[in-house]
Amino acid sequence: VTSAQRKSFGSDNHAGAHPAVLTALTAANIGDATAYGDDPLTEGVTARLCAEFGAAAAFFVFGGTAANVLGLGLMLRPFEAVICAESAHLNGDECGAAERVLGSKLLTVPAPGGKLTPALIASQLAGRGNSHRAQPRAVEIAQATEVGTVYTLDELRAISEFCRASELLLYVDGARLANAAAYLDCTLADLAAHADVLSFGGTKNGAMGAEAVIVMNEPLAAAMPFQRMQLMQLASKMRFLAAQFGALLDGGLWLANARHSNAMAARLADGVAGVPGFRLAHPVEANAVFGVLRRDQVRALQQDWNFHVWAEEAAEESVTRWMTAFDTTPADVDAFAAAIRATAPLPRQPVF
Amino acid sequence: VTSAQRKSFGSDNHAGAHPAVLTALTAANIGDATAYGDDPLTEGVTARLCAEFGAAAAFFVFGGTAANVLGLGLMLRPFEAVICAESAHLNGDECGAAERVLGSKLLTVPAPGGKLTPALIASQLAGRGNSHRAQPRAVEIAQATEVGTVYTLDELRAISEFCRASELLLYVDGARLANAAAYLDCTLADLAAHADVLSFGGTKNGAMGAEAVIVMNEPLAAAMPFQRMQLMQLASKMRFLAAQFGALLDGGLWLANARHSNAMAARLADGVAGVPGFRLAHPVEANAVFGVLRRDQVRALQQDWNFHVWAEEAAEESVTRWMTAFDTTPADVDAFAAAIRATAPLPRQPVF
Amino acid sequence: VTSAQRKSFGSDNHAGAHPAVLTALTAANIGDATAYGDDPLTEGVTARLCAEFGAAAAFFVFGGTAANVLGLGLMLRPFEAVICAESAHLNGDECGAAERVLGSKLLTVPAPGGKLTPALIASQLAGRGNSHRAQPRAVEIAQATEVGTVYTLDELRAISEFCRASELLLYVDGARLANAAAYLDCTLADLAAHADVLSFGGTKNGAMGAEAVIVMNEPLAAAMPFQRMQLMQLASKMRFLAAQFGALLDGGLWLANARHSNAMAARLADGVAGVPGFRLAHPVEANAVFGVLRRDQVRALQQDWNFHVWAEEAAEESVTRWMTAFDTTPADVDAFAAAIRATAPLPRQPVF
Amino acid sequence: VTSAQRKSFGSDNHAGAHPAVLTALTAANIGDATAYGDDPLTEGVTARLCAEFGAAAAFFVFGGTAANVLGLGLMLRPFEAVICAESAHLNGDECGAAERVLGSKLLTVPAPGGKLTPALIASQLAGRGNSHRAQPRAVEIAQATEVGTVYTLDELRAISEFCRASELLLYVDGARLANAAAYLDCTLADLAAHADVLSFGGTKNGAMGAEAVIVMNEPLAAAMPFQRMQLMQLASKMRFLAAQFGALLDGGLWLANARHSNAMAARLADGVAGVPGFRLAHPVEANAVFGVLRRDQVRALQQDWNFHVWAEEAAEESVTRWMTAFDTTPADVDAFAAAIRATAPLPRQPVF
Repeated sequence: VTSAQRKSFGSDNHAGAHPAVLTALTAANIGDATAYGDDPLTEGVTARLCAEFGAAAAFFVFGGTAANVLGLGLMLRPFEAVICAESAHLNGDECGAAERVLGSKLLTVPAPGGKLTPALIASQLAGRGNSHRAQPRAVEIAQATEVGTVYTLDELRAISEFCRASELLLYVDGARLANAAAYLDCTLADLAAHADVLSFGGTKNGAMGAEAVIVMNEPLAAAMPFQRMQLMQLASKMRFLAAQFGALLDGGLWLANARHSNAMAARLADGVAGVPGFRLAHPVEANAVFGVLRRDQVRALQQDWNFHVWAEEAAEESVTRWMTAFDTTPADVDAFAAAIRATAPLPRQPVF
Repeated sequence: VTSAQRKSFGSDNHAGAHPAVLTALTAANIGDATAYGDDPLTEGVTARLCAEFGAAAAFFVFGGTAANVLGLGLMLRPFEAVICAESAHLNGDECGAAERVLGSKLLTVPAPGGKLTPALIASQLAGRGNSHRAQPRAVEIAQATEVGTVYTLDELRAISEFCRASELLLYVDGARLANAAAYLDCTLADLAAHADVLSFGGTKNGAMGAEAVIVMNEPLAAAMPFQRMQLMQLASKMRFLAAQFGALLDGGLWLANARHSNAMAARLADGVAGVPGFRLAHPVEANAVFGVLRRDQVRALQQDWNFHVWAEEAAEESVTRWMTAFDTTPADVDAFAAAIRATAPLPRQPVF
Repeated sequence: VTSAQRKSFGSDNHAGAHPAVLTALTAANIGDATAYGDDPLTEGVTARLCAEFGAAAAFFVFGGTAANVLGLGLMLRPFEAVICAESAHLNGDECGAAERVLGSKLLTVPAPGGKLTPALIASQLAGRGNSHRAQPRAVEIAQATEVGTVYTLDELRAISEFCRASELLLYVDGARLANAAAYLDCTLADLAAHADVLSFGGTKNGAMGAEAVIVMNEPLAAAMPFQRMQLMQLASKMRFLAAQFGALLDGGLWLANARHSNAMAARLADGVAGVPGFRLAHPVEANAVFGVLRRDQVRALQQDWNFHVWAEEAAEESVTRWMTAFDTTPADVDAFAAAIRATAPLPRQPVF
Repeated sequence: VTSAQRKSFGSDNHAGAHPAVLTALTAANIGDATAYGDDPLTEGVTARLCAEFGAAAAFFVFGGTAANVLGLGLMLRPFEAVICAESAHLNGDECGAAERVLGSKLLTVPAPGGKLTPALIASQLAGRGNSHRAQPRAVEIAQATEVGTVYTLDELRAISEFCRASELLLYVDGARLANAAAYLDCTLADLAAHADVLSFGGTKNGAMGAEAVIVMNEPLAAAMPFQRMQLMQLASKMRFLAAQFGALLDGGLWLANARHSNAMAARLADGVAGVPGFRLAHPVEANAVFGVLRRDQVRALQQDWNFHVWAEEAAEESVTRWMTAFDTTPADVDAFAAAIRATAPLPRQPVF
């Protein structure tokens, strides 16, 4: 195989769409459908999503940043702020979308393992009632987190209870919510029970490009139709977003995809355990392996393999991120693990 | 046929995707591709679009409102305004997206037939240099217009020359640009030559959901990558937007689709010409027929057919809009025309 | 007198501050005061304003545009729109502040005499519930209007009742509210009873620079402290804004000032009545005279006098605006009226 | 004296206006003046400010947050970010004004002593060219800083040179620029030479309420008239902002005021040096003393004196902020210092 043919570990969105998604798109392409979501397919898939999540409403949007911004947009006036981890995708990887589109400030806090806690959230509440400070109103967490860890249901409950007691709304960035549910072996409703609004990522789970915003209580949902249009996220041929989620819901494909990609990440972590020069930066819970390697190892690997360097550490080490996807095969993983092992320094030969 | 099976004349986005588009999506779904457009398919289709338009750059976005807002966003600071027709989609059908996202004011002017002219544009320039007025900086026209008319190349040239002489940039909403090119029997480059930035609509031309922003000169394009991300229009699996445009470009499918839908609108107009109670509200140039009927005729038709009432007129009349699409058949048109004819009042019987 | 010494009829903000305002500023300048409004003077004047208006809360801001934007900001989410007269200051003279700062669209309607009516407001409600349209939520009227007319209490009541029945909130731009109260011979509370939020202009009434936002019910006011800070309208040395309003409230100075300036406008209108070539463009109710003159008359007058040309009419005529202020004297008016009369064409001499 | 009569050390904006400012306001209140700054007084004072700073243009605004937002607004598109200290007023005390009004993200960095350095700035540049990151474009520093320290001219030069070499523009929040100039014994032009845009704070220097935005090169200034109006900072009776700066410029009053308040802070620091339980949190350079005290000392002092607790430290200590103003007297300082000394624990008596 050439480098181009090797499986990418760069991102779960380097994968294409699951074949069932394409089949569903083809099936949805029969006849006319009223635009903007006023069609039976959209209505049906929306109802199924609401049932899965125990939600009041669900709305399709084009991408993950949009899901985050529109989800938070249901909760915030511009002088209200979002408490989130410094490492949040919202903070570091969305080009300031939340600030620009919502006008809201992000109150960021360093969060070990990418996870907020009630104590970390509480540390950001000092300015309440002070008109010189943006007013904390929403908490944003990612499940799974940006570093591949997963909040336990107990951790979620603790955050959720803290939020409710503190007049804070909880938004969950679920770009990889399926991977979290798979890891926790729980339902989507189990996760959603702790949130006010969450996103459910289709794209990284095998869709071609579709995300859903899930709203747990009716009053929060009322603004969405208008906000979605004004913020340029209302698909005219909506049935094609709905069809993708329909395919992922059918027979629990979303869960199978997530379980598989999680398993591939675990297999990769196992495959490189004990390699000299390597250690895990974070526990492997969802579909990411964050591995620390020496920079010369990284350079050697990058000749042939696609993955991201996440951070440069001291002592000539780099944190790398290796993502798996629904279509990563055991053979892909084993080949990559072998390549990683091959970068390990030879043990020093004893001198006789 | 039941009502549900009758072809919709409600909008060209009630149609599904052209089969070639689905084929292209399937073909694009092989192997991995780097996300966010850094893949060969995206690069290739982008280059082909630039060649077709004689453009400096092209960018895919999810929808038509986004194309308009991001296209104008390359031209405007928030205190700068857009001159557009009162009837512009931008003004009346995008939920205030431009105002919210760009912060810019729209300076609207009643425009007969949906068309701006140099004189109409000039009427909006009085506030220049006056700090109490939003400063006119961009002109927005739609080609084809919101009422199905098409600017001639001479009309475009006159507007374009006026804009250049007046330090105004010209943005063309090309959600139906293909239909305009088909009507004028000109190239996309012929149309683009008069614009600074334009959109090229894929969705209404047979795509599943994809639009392109075409930028005619390099400096205007520099901000787009960042703006597109910040405004939530950067597709992660970008290849699937590119593939749709690839299919439309192959063998001139975009033009064939546009010619066909234009022809179906012309056939419909012919089919109802002379029907008592009916008259055209606008000349039929692209793929829309704006027909005036008496309200009782409209009510009767709406029992079985899907179309929009555009405006209520005096004298118990309504302006209706009938859109055709790439997949509207002559039989569809003839059935609808027959139904329209059937609403005509019986001629008064002579009394013996 | 030279041109520079002649009284300006250009605007009521060409006048300086009333001496009592300067006296109040000097009196307020004793000792320290906690910043940002947490001082006894601010609290006291705020309470007096609330009492005058029968209001729940009052907030000082720096200028009239800010009062309008912040007042409307208490009512609107960005996808919600403001219905206002095309001639509204908000629409034509604030450089798009509402659009930029609030993100909201203005739904403008031509309004004879600058006045909205329930029917005109109703004409803008068609898009309700349609996600493609910005949602009408607030109505904005100016009292007095931009063309110097005044809504009667009956007209206000009709608008107010229509708004309440239609789930619309009513904002009153009261940059010249004092002049309206003086004209109607009613209290500020009489005017405020019909509004949800209004501004009360100090600057044009004799202040140095201070406006108040008056909020009629408590829940609407809750966001103001944060919004005012975020939108850069929170004065640190707030006592000096409060002191200005204190002076205007003392002994009803606001009303005396308004009555006087209204009287001067009436005197001016009387003084030019019947002058050949002159006619009123609008009835003279507050402190403005909108007079139509031939353009050669205007040119001659502008040699020596400061006033605005409001609009150019056909037939070589211009609409001019002549504003009076608290410090305009009868002698000022009479001199200006004489100058206007002097521009009149000589009556054609009878030929013997 | 009662607590209310004791000089506040809470903020330099607890002071009133310098008598010369009131005199200037009274002098400016003669006759009419064209509104919005088109008057000789505004033109004259603006020219004097430009001369003092070696600047291309100067603009008056109402407050310090506005000066910061409008100054940065000349430099930034919404996808461009500001690098600033975590402790910046812009970040922590302006209710998210920059984010809301400009749409821009703040890239904050912990800055010892409130001061950025080229290395700290450089640490925020990693995302350049990456469309997922807001693009660093401006650097914001405060001179004096939020904790009363002052950048030396060498430190300023190093930052300025780094910015120019890195395509970054430098904005200086000069709410207390006068205090910095006084401390450094340099001219305003010496400070301004290193900046692209800066604010010059009048309010904390003895004005009633006026700030200036100083723009060092012409092209950056072009947008200001429109931006200032759209962002609600254009005073109608502008002469009264200009008059305040005129008074501060006359005879170098700004410098005398700053020198005096700096001297009072130094006197206070001297007066409490060596008090048991007390230490300085930051060097005393401008007109602030940041003193650490035990919490019981703070509680005792707050019975009678007005000052802010800046931060709570471990070990039962608090960082307090004591500000001096142009009108703080040596007697005020000595009384406060005595009160602080009186909170010190009695030395433990030796036991015989």
